[in-house]
Amino acid sequence: MIRIAVDAMGGDFGVVVTIPASLAFLSNHADAELLLVGQTPVLQSHALYAQLLAHPRCRMVEASEVVTMDDSIEIALRRKKNSSMRVAVNQVKDGSAQAAVSAGNTGALMAVARYVLKTMDGIDRPAIATQLPNAVGGATTVLDLGANVDCTEDHLLQFAVMGSALVAAISENLTPSVGLLNIGEEAIKGSEVIKKAGELLRSASNSGDLNFYGNVEGNDIFKGTTDIVVCDGFVGNVALKTSEGLAGMIGSFIKTEFSRNIFTKMAGVVAYPVLSAVKSRMDHRRYNGAALLGLQGLVFKSHGSADAFAFERALNRAYDAARNSLLEKVYERITHAAPLLVMTKVLPAVVAVPTSYLISTDATVFAPTH
Amino acid sequence: MIRIAVDAMGGDFGVVVTIPASLAFLSNHADAELLLVGQTPVLQSHALYAQLLAHPRCRMVEASEVVTMDDSIEIALRRKKNSSMRVAVNQVKDGSAQAAVSAGNTGALMAVARYVLKTMDGIDRPAIATQLPNAVGGATTVLDLGANVDCTEDHLLQFAVMGSALVAAISENLTPSVGLLNIGEEAIKGSEVIKKAGELLRSASNSGDLNFYGNVEGNDIFKGTTDIVVCDGFVGNVALKTSEGLAGMIGSFIKTEFSRNIFTKMAGVVAYPVLSAVKSRMDHRRYNGAALLGLQGLVFKSHGSADAFAFERALNRAYDAARNSLLEKVYERITHAAPLLVMTKVLPAVVAVPTSYLISTDATVFAPTH
Repeated sequence: MIRIAVDAMGGDFGVVVTIPASLAFLSNHADAELLLVGQTPVLQSHALYAQLLAHPRCRMVEASEVVTMDDSIEIALRRKKNSSMRVAVNQVKDGSAQAAVSAGNTGALMAVARYVLKTMDGIDRPAIATQLPNAVGGATTVLDLGANVDCTEDHLLQFAVMGSALVAAISENLTPSVGLLNIGEEAIKGSEVIKKAGELLRSASNSGDLNFYGNVEGNDIFKGTTDIVVCDGFVGNVALKTSEGLAGMIGSFIKTEFSRNIFTKMAGVVAYPVLSAVKSRMDHRRYNGAALLGLQGLVFKSHGSADAFAFERALNRAYDAARNSLLEKVYERITHAAPLLVMTKVLPAVVAVPTSYLISTDATVFAPTH
Repeated sequence: MIRIAVDAMGGDFGVVVTIPASLAFLSNHADAELLLVGQTPVLQSHALYAQLLAHPRCRMVEASEVVTMDDSIEIALRRKKNSSMRVAVNQVKDGSAQAAVSAGNTGALMAVARYVLKTMDGIDRPAIATQLPNAVGGATTVLDLGANVDCTEDHLLQFAVMGSALVAAISENLTPSVGLLNIGEEAIKGSEVIKKAGELLRSASNSGDLNFYGNVEGNDIFKGTTDIVVCDGFVGNVALKTSEGLAGMIGSFIKTEFSRNIFTKMAGVVAYPVLSAVKSRMDHRRYNGAALLGLQGLVFKSHGSADAFAFERALNRAYDAARNSLLEKVYERITHAAPLLVMTKVLPAVVAVPTSYLISTDATVFAPTH
């Protein structure tokens, strides 16, 4: 049995999304249980709550507070110690659940998860990993998406090892390829940190810790050149949000041009099913559920604006990760890579990232036509 | 009279593109002259060469060598001293031309231009600035696009000042707004360099050196939140290439879905004019011509794969810049901002960027449907 703790209050829509998604998830996973964490009066206000509560594999856990999308990390961490987010993560800490899922504020979730669960040995900074659709029909796992800025080569190696464990656990591709995001394919290109990271990743590849492809460029994310793309959180966040902006612009241009006059509107009616198919191939909802990696427990972040379909995908992702022992796999890989990680310790000491660095990764990358 | 030196041999297509573009440019600009730089035998091989040579406002300048797209910077700089690229830049140095345009290899062009023309006083590193279309119907000027990695806050300030001069010269918007690319809007977010750059840009804004909007995120580039977006070359290059990858993926998805069967093909025929209009709005060719800023002379880089239409746009851009005294405007703004630029000199000395950092910015961002 896989038990998942759900922050039922998080995200832009709270119970309106989490309750129907939880019901659907339970119907589709006979060996899953849910711990629904939230404020009883709010939960009760939803028409389907009674049905969910009556479900033999769902149990309610009370939380008196809610971290809002605008709450600062300080408030989430120090003032709202009984928030649904925190209580959900506590279930993982206590061993009551194998994973927690929240659509709440990314910065707050990362800070709370990090505070409650702590990082794994060998990991300085947890990272946020998400999947983006690619042209070869699969998805590229990208990390870090913004939890960390000013990364050292050591951090990038940790991200590569953790990302490899994630993809190996979820896709059953045991040797996923890793690309290092750079501004050219040649090893000589890039910043000082990237050049050193390239050497480190090559060493890790030689010692069997990962399958390093080499440097990749921004376009390789969507080309699907490698299974994993590793980058500094600053760069990853800019790439994600730039993509969001471009997809939004293309979507709005398509909408405008098809709305121009009666003829273009008629063309729009004819083209609609085809454009819907295009949209569906890039549907960001299918890829919802970013993993917070490097913690001593599994936590998944749903997009804040996720609908029930998307939130269920995040639950699925947490379920898959728990069922495939992601935590143990990350731990094993980190342990195996320990000599390299230790080797890098001769470099300047790593300073823990201040929580104020943590940022939102809520980027609606692929919603071009709405 | 505005005189432009054209590297007729550069780019993927050389004279096939540069000769027709030059003819079209001369027809459209009665007060422009061109210096066509290249190897006579190759120029002569083009059917329109005789017509161009006979043009009263075109003159040929011999160059015995060509920098190929694959030539290393070292070869371009040290072995091919009589390349069409170098000779074109020399025309600017000598005062024979007010600007040079080349579709050749970006790294080589930057290195040659920097070597021949030198940087302006107050500028440590030249930057590459390009325009990207935005959702508000205009274009956002982004710099740096990859000439510089590991930028300091000082460099980012220089980019902001130079970008402001560029937009002021070309668009006649005298106080273009500047956004600092970051991973959140709040001043507290970002890397150490970005935070310091934010302070510096605010000071520059207070002293009237620029119109600083504040931090922007990746999606703001295509939203058109500010006229200018300033970033480290690493980040700018990743953002540009990621956009290229996404646009390519969307384009290929649209193509695949419309080619699926006879019905979707018919829908494609109906939708074609509308999708062409969308494509035209994002036509990267219209924005061709990146400025190399910070040099003691005007140099513009055309996309390597530019066709004649696109190459003519790059010529137009160089012409506009020369006619609107871009060089003097950059110089004036740098001089005005000198106290701030000097103030930052107490920071660690800036090391000139090794030429090996220079990378290609040839990203075909907006060619979604071909």
